[in-house]
Amino acid sequence: MRIIVRDENSYPIEDALSIYLSKLKYSPRVIEISVNNAYGYILSEDVKSQIDYPPFSRSNVDGYAVKSSCTPGIFQVVDKISIGEYKEINLKECVAVEVDTGAPIPMGADAVIKVEDVEVLDDRKIRVTKKVNFGYNVGWLGSDIPKGMLVLRKGERITHEKISLLSSLGVNKIKVYDKLKVYVIATGDELVEPGNPLPPGKIYESNLHYLVSRLKQNYDIVGFSLLGDDFVKIKDEIKKAISISDVVILTGGTSAGEKDYVNKAIRELGEIVVHGIKIKPGKPTILGIINNKPVIGLSGNVVATIVIFDMIVSKVLESLIPKREDNLEFKTIRAKLVLPVRADKYRDTLIPVYLFKGNNDSNYYALPLKFESYMIGTFTLADGLIMVKAGQEISERGEVEVLVKKYSNSLTIIGEEDKRFLELDARSILLGSLPALKALEYNFGDVLIISSLYTNSIDNYDKVISRKVLVNGEGEEVGYDDWIGISNLVKNPAVRLKSPSSSYAFLGKAKVYAPEGYIDGRKVADENLYLIGLTDRGKKFIMNLNI
Amino acid sequence: MRIIVRDENSYPIEDALSIYLSKLKYSPRVIEISVNNAYGYILSEDVKSQIDYPPFSRSNVDGYAVKSSCTPGIFQVVDKISIGEYKEINLKECVAVEVDTGAPIPMGADAVIKVEDVEVLDDRKIRVTKKVNFGYNVGWLGSDIPKGMLVLRKGERITHEKISLLSSLGVNKIKVYDKLKVYVIATGDELVEPGNPLPPGKIYESNLHYLVSRLKQNYDIVGFSLLGDDFVKIKDEIKKAISISDVVILTGGTSAGEKDYVNKAIRELGEIVVHGIKIKPGKPTILGIINNKPVIGLSGNVVATIVIFDMIVSKVLESLIPKREDNLEFKTIRAKLVLPVRADKYRDTLIPVYLFKGNNDSNYYALPLKFESYMIGTFTLADGLIMVKAGQEISERGEVEVLVKKYSNSLTIIGEEDKRFLELDARSILLGSLPALKALEYNFGDVLIISSLYTNSIDNYDKVISRKVLVNGEGEEVGYDDWIGISNLVKNPAVRLKSPSSSYAFLGKAKVYAPEGYIDGRKVADENLYLIGLTDRGKKFIMNLNI
Repeated sequence: MRIIVRDENSYPIEDALSIYLSKLKYSPRVIEISVNNAYGYILSEDVKSQIDYPPFSRSNVDGYAVKSSCTPGIFQVVDKISIGEYKEINLKECVAVEVDTGAPIPMGADAVIKVEDVEVLDDRKIRVTKKVNFGYNVGWLGSDIPKGMLVLRKGERITHEKISLLSSLGVNKIKVYDKLKVYVIATGDELVEPGNPLPPGKIYESNLHYLVSRLKQNYDIVGFSLLGDDFVKIKDEIKKAISISDVVILTGGTSAGEKDYVNKAIRELGEIVVHGIKIKPGKPTILGIINNKPVIGLSGNVVATIVIFDMIVSKVLESLIPKREDNLEFKTIRAKLVLPVRADKYRDTLIPVYLFKGNNDSNYYALPLKFESYMIGTFTLADGLIMVKAGQEISERGEVEVLVKKYSNSLTIIGEEDKRFLELDARSILLGSLPALKALEYNFGDVLIISSLYTNSIDNYDKVISRKVLVNGEGEEVGYDDWIGISNLVKNPAVRLKSPSSSYAFLGKAKVYAPEGYIDGRKVADENLYLIGLTDRGKKFIMNLNI
Repeated sequence: MRIIVRDENSYPIEDALSIYLSKLKYSPRVIEISVNNAYGYILSEDVKSQIDYPPFSRSNVDGYAVKSSCTPGIFQVVDKISIGEYKEINLKECVAVEVDTGAPIPMGADAVIKVEDVEVLDDRKIRVTKKVNFGYNVGWLGSDIPKGMLVLRKGERITHEKISLLSSLGVNKIKVYDKLKVYVIATGDELVEPGNPLPPGKIYESNLHYLVSRLKQNYDIVGFSLLGDDFVKIKDEIKKAISISDVVILTGGTSAGEKDYVNKAIRELGEIVVHGIKIKPGKPTILGIINNKPVIGLSGNVVATIVIFDMIVSKVLESLIPKREDNLEFKTIRAKLVLPVRADKYRDTLIPVYLFKGNNDSNYYALPLKFESYMIGTFTLADGLIMVKAGQEISERGEVEVLVKKYSNSLTIIGEEDKRFLELDARSILLGSLPALKALEYNFGDVLIISSLYTNSIDNYDKVISRKVLVNGEGEEVGYDDWIGISNLVKNPAVRLKSPSSSYAFLGKAKVYAPEGYIDGRKVADENLYLIGLTDRGKKFIMNLNI
């Protein structure tokens, strides 16, 4: 007599999956691979930059490096530095050095005048007609990625962009989780390989072809086979598969009828956790475990194989390798700008943004980032990109179309950088107090960190922490915006460093804030950091914060 | 003196691309490959099914095959057909044959009673308590894909699902366009391979790593190299690259400065079509041609390489292989159902749909398809899937979330099947008059084809064509719904065949409509097909129709 898998006894799909996942244990293998071949792999450890990027203060244009304090004026052109060259030059006077885009600027220079913007008087003399600011057209050492910065986290999937970022930072090998080894077995007396004549009553095999084609995109297929309904052969093949793979996938023979040997073989060799799922097609799905390894039996039905692959198999396979989710559900999205943007006069201009979902509305908010085209770090770490038409300005609250690269809904910290917030297991957008105040205004993000040096008007906060501040500026107060996207909007810009590690480069040149201990002595003030929890999980996070 | 690419003289990106594409000529190579390895390739010829699928009338359940006219009643179980078996049985009396899901039903049987729904009297006797209809639980020969049906078109990209479909139809080799052969050259004295120490003034090479990683997903990388700023070496490398590849991509040296040798080399070896694009970053992009082959020079800037790859290079590469666009811009979409759907009582039920965009509104409309899980053709050719919760009914106009697999905005013909509409270069959804009437009601699609046998109320049409109809039914009028999703909603269902080629199988069993010439003689009526153009392009299409 036939035994049947009754609908009433089978599991809803969510239950089937969660029961099964809770029983699976897998310790992924860590391997070291070449960055070139890393596309699609999952990082098994955090990656911190071993270098400052850019590795030297560079010119962002073809032009003439000068001291900004000498502008306007007439300059003798005393030397030239090409891209790739390094010269021990130290500008002490009001002279100029010709530089290529991407070439180092000489010591003592702090601005570059574009070749289009100078008046060439003769081969060795130029006139600069306007006053320029400190930092004009300069990409400072470490201004995109300071040495020591956490750039990629354990669990992130390697994309082509991240390969570019890693290469830019000099990384050629990384540790990743090895691909899962998968073995696929199709069973059924009715199956004939495509390309052969089809006897009456038979059908062409397609499940193996589908599964192998699909699996090989992300996994390592260590074997596959097509078997008839032969119990001994099926059982032996499963044993062999289990011995050399991490996961075994079978099709056919999963009902509870007479020839349903896959069912019997899995039951004899291990355990069947789920047999029967409340889904059509795909009911006679088996989720089993043999030697602690997942063994999944799919109905021989071709559409069921595709559907259950998407709904169960891919989720099981994905769950075995611990990873950070991207939650990428859209390619483009409309968002409100929280700071204005402006394009180049002649050129459509790409601007990276961070994206936030409103806490109490369904809007998405875009925080535009200060960006120069050498900034592979800023570009790669951003959530999305907007393209602003040549000559166009878009004001705060303006709507933009964002090309989304990634988006995470995990707990988000926005505000002042502090080493205590750098490596928490959260999404940390530590770009200063301005974005945090914007987050407060528009209500996005979970935890805000606002500095007492920035505003006096924070009354409702959940915690306050303090740090020592060193003001090392001497002479003129200068306008270097290191902080991508933000500092140029601060009323009193100063050198605000992305990381304490690059502070030394600016000593004596600019006003420097740095946490205690990074620069010896010379404390001059206390700074308070106000922590505000905007959401329940944000408040809880602050409450549990042990700092 | 420096020469510069002035912003004012450079091209807007759309112009740059269209000027360049208009100058490129490429004849793609056709190769025959194994279906197993075809993922991602573009079909170079149409594929028609060489078999009826399913290849025999099959049981959709584990149960007992009978003549529907014998139900209800007590049946002697005279034989058993397992999956994969074929037996020369011809049921002439009111007896039953036990059949597996997927097994052939015997000649003479026209319905299968599920094992759960019969009362087993003894080993060889069962009772069926209800009257069942002709075709109940039967998947007729060719009911998913009739022999001769055009299943995939030249220019379609092969997906895993299409590999499953092709395998199901017995196809193991297909003709596709060969992958483009690409050669990548990075140039610049400043570049150092990652993994090595970084001398002052140098930066790590990353463009080559990015381009190779990205290109190898879809193209055949025949070579890559990293060169210093050496004009002779660069020129020689380009010559070598051109001799063995279809496309050459370079980075660096694309400005018009002194060391910009890529620019000079391309100019000497061929033609520069575009030099300078109004985009930031990416201005100094070169779109050149050497020996009729595209040679693209990207700025050495790492972000520019990524941005221009997306905006230009990938579009150039994609344009060289003629393909049908999928226009897939969303993963899921909300759509209005134009016919009601109902899930299985116990199981969440997957239903494939076609998607249409409203002509005068921004709604998407979903036409649900009649579906059984053996129907890999219906599943693969559908635009998307909806999942209806167990026990749930959703009425017409109900909103559903569609998981989108593909969506095409090309000219869409909806309505009666006729061989004159089968192979037009359009999106042909030939599922009968009912969906066409729904398209008329909701205003979607471009061309509707409605039969005079279905309705008398069509007054405003753009063209009428006629065909001979043969009514071959004798005896009872039966309710076999062959027409996926539709015929069960027709008031007077009859056997309406997906293709004339399968008409023979039903002669004498049912009322058959078939175009003239497919079944000899016995014309009994004229049928008018009313053609209605809903959109301007639809009206134009009808006007130009030469039938």
